Amino acid sequence: MTTATLPPDLDAELSALLGAEGWRTDAATRQAHGSDDSRRHAMPAGVALPRDRDQVAAIVRACRRHRVPLVARGAGTGTAAAAVPFGGGIVVSFARMNRILQLRPDDRCAVVEPGVVNGDLQQALQPLGLFWPPDPSSFETCTIGGNLACNAGGPRAVKYGATRDNVLGLVAVTGRGELVRCGGPWTKDATGYDLTHLIVGSEGTLALIVEATLRLQPRPRAVAGLRALYRDAASATAAIARLMRQPQVPAMLEFLDRSALGLLRGQGVALPEAGAMLLVEADGDDDGLPGVLQALADAASGEGLLDLDVAPDGAARERLWAARRALSPALRGIAPGKLNEDVVVPVSRIAELVEGVEALAARHALPIVAFGHAGNGNLHVNVMFHPDDAGEAARARAALDELFALVLALEGTLSGEHGIGVAKRDWMARAFDAPTLAAMRAVKAALDPDGILNPGKVLPPGHPDPL
Amino acid sequence: MTTATLPPDLDAELSALLGAEGWRTDAATRQAHGSDDSRRHAMPAGVALPRDRDQVAAIVRACRRHRVPLVARGAGTGTAAAAVPFGGGIVVSFARMNRILQLRPDDRCAVVEPGVVNGDLQQALQPLGLFWPPDPSSFETCTIGGNLACNAGGPRAVKYGATRDNVLGLVAVTGRGELVRCGGPWTKDATGYDLTHLIVGSEGTLALIVEATLRLQPRPRAVAGLRALYRDAASATAAIARLMRQPQVPAMLEFLDRSALGLLRGQGVALPEAGAMLLVEADGDDDGLPGVLQALADAASGEGLLDLDVAPDGAARERLWAARRALSPALRGIAPGKLNEDVVVPVSRIAELVEGVEALAARHALPIVAFGHAGNGNLHVNVMFHPDDAGEAARARAALDELFALVLALEGTLSGEHGIGVAKRDWMARAFDAPTLAAMRAVKAALDPDGILNPGKVLPPGHPDPL
Repeated sequence: MTTATLPPDLDAELSALLGAEGWRTDAATRQAHGSDDSRRHAMPAGVALPRDRDQVAAIVRACRRHRVPLVARGAGTGTAAAAVPFGGGIVVSFARMNRILQLRPDDRCAVVEPGVVNGDLQQALQPLGLFWPPDPSSFETCTIGGNLACNAGGPRAVKYGATRDNVLGLVAVTGRGELVRCGGPWTKDATGYDLTHLIVGSEGTLALIVEATLRLQPRPRAVAGLRALYRDAASATAAIARLMRQPQVPAMLEFLDRSALGLLRGQGVALPEAGAMLLVEADGDDDGLPGVLQALADAASGEGLLDLDVAPDGAARERLWAARRALSPALRGIAPGKLNEDVVVPVSRIAELVEGVEALAARHALPIVAFGHAGNGNLHVNVMFHPDDAGEAARARAALDELFALVLALEGTLSGEHGIGVAKRDWMARAFDAPTLAAMRAVKAALDPDGILNPGKVLPPGHPDPL
Repeated sequence: MTTATLPPDLDAELSALLGAEGWRTDAATRQAHGSDDSRRHAMPAGVALPRDRDQVAAIVRACRRHRVPLVARGAGTGTAAAAVPFGGGIVVSFARMNRILQLRPDDRCAVVEPGVVNGDLQQALQPLGLFWPPDPSSFETCTIGGNLACNAGGPRAVKYGATRDNVLGLVAVTGRGELVRCGGPWTKDATGYDLTHLIVGSEGTLALIVEATLRLQPRPRAVAGLRALYRDAASATAAIARLMRQPQVPAMLEFLDRSALGLLRGQGVALPEAGAMLLVEADGDDDGLPGVLQALADAASGEGLLDLDVAPDGAARERLWAARRALSPALRGIAPGKLNEDVVVPVSRIAELVEGVEALAARHALPIVAFGHAGNGNLHVNVMFHPDDAGEAARARAALDELFALVLALEGTLSGEHGIGVAKRDWMARAFDAPTLAAMRAVKAALDPDGILNPGKVLPPGHPDPL
């Protein structure tokens, strides 16, 4: 379905519904709403900026009548091109639906509109002694709606879970243009089908989220960290296994390979020579924390450990983490082309993954930088290349294909926190067998019978319902 | 759809598929598989006892061809009549699919067949220092499959979540007779639609679960408890709010009203006179636990506290909890009829719920006993009556109707851990608006297009797809 221009009736209807501030068809606005952090771009035919849920429902109903596709958009920080309107149609931006509707500390939840920026919510929660766990590195700009759409994670997920684990309820508009309400301000629910967790991670293909009830956690009173340097990746992955086998769950557990350490040094972080690094954090209260930190330090210690540093509070620790967060953007310094995949394997298979990635880099003569959320088995594997060099570009694509084959052979899956979008869509048929994909397509058809919500994303092309 | 007798072709086909041990049509076996803990009964036309997932898929395909309904069955401990085959057809018992397939301590997960008994899994995990959080009071007999089907909970859910929060992946047979595989031995997943959490809690109406990958937790090294007695329910509910507002999450937080305390005494538990009781547990390691317990004791203390006892380890504590677990069965001593609802409200509204329940008991002149998982806002409200007394039975039904109206007015929902089955089905249209129910029906039709899986459960009668 491609809709480069809109039916005049629809244009008029949306203009009347949303007004000049809420309905834009000028080229500059359309251009600005056509890309995300995948660096891909496509022009929408119009941009809707609804003020409330009823406007969202009306937009979807109008588009449904005209069979015009809609793509929901938060802040455009996604990396899988899920927010790029390849089929034209309408981008629905939630920039004007950015109110925090309720803060309910006694129920440990918050009710928000999808356009609220993750970092703004965290700031509002700070005085209450609470936080919302998902902490993608783009937290200062990305929106809750985007976090929900792609089931975003971040380093804290190892202890607190990713977005799906921290949502209690949703209000959303299905592809039928109807508002559905599921879950709510409670923490236990055996009442009907769990549409809430189904819609989370569906990347705007099943419904447009217009309100979310988020599960909050008490802010830990104390935080402490470890920096562990290892001779090589094998020593570091053995330490990851030891860390995750013992009972004290770290609040973060990040792995950085040799190339990533080089990038950190390039950002001015002073680091001894090493083959791999782990950043480990513990949180808790003042009484319990020293014991937790000791348990983590014991587990981090072993064959191949070069240096174990209890990171001081304050500036030095913050510098280390800021550098870690800046790793992804800094990669462009190695080569202008980057295929960044956030694959997942069972924790027990990380060593094989890292070994396999090193072999891939050697075989294809390309820099591959691997780092990420080791406690969840979720590594960011960045295949670097020069797009203008046809040979490098072809080798990069081949390496990526072999990477996914490796991950699936290690009982893993394609994405831990970035989602599928179009970037990983064509591997879905290898990650899932035909009946499972058919079941997903049937669910899609159930909630979006005309296929107007973010068409072409997540599911590879195929027959919607084989039976 | 009612199928009191089977088409001869189907009978022959299932007999050939499953053999004499796996396919039973004798009256005794059918009788024994016709009820659950709801005390309702209906005769199935046959009982299938498959050995493996391929047999399950073949059974569903055969039933689909003949449009014969199937009802999945674990141990029959459910209270909402979800396992009762009101429409006849076939009961699929998972009693012979009871193998623990993998224990993966390094990945903190276990892979099991649905017929594994909850308590058997816990025993197998004990030497590994791990446990699976769901702990319904029937844990010694109920099966993992049943826990998954109704999203079972238990006291530990306040800290560790209910069943849905502790499942990483499923293999299941949809109503099309096809095996779908979703999730796996990893803890972070942004790959495609989350069928796993959709199928959990769907009470056998969307798919039959044939394998589950369960998230495990490290066994806490130390556990300690508090017993707090209050002058009245209002003082106890104020303490619940204080306990859940402070950062130390209790491992259990159980409320018992005055009538429940009377039942405990009837079981030989020595208790001072009081209007309400809280049982609070903390877990952790030896270093941190005293601080947690102190924080919980501080929060439990306040206006109306009569007695605060730090429960000793060992026998006395175990007696208290055993008595707590025996409360539900003990209720029959008050009156032979019991309408037991496991309603949920936001924690901040528990006081209003308890007050409302007391008013209901007074207004309808019936004993109502309330106790349960206060940290989740999940109370078991038991309306007691003599079924032979037509007036009492009518008043009990009226009280129940008012209870659900109260719960919904307090922003709550119908069931926290027992599920809907048929027992609460007719209130679904009050808990959800028409578009949300229509979306649930569309999802049901997507995965079970012929409506053969546990027909008549969860969703109230209605048109399957209005558009």
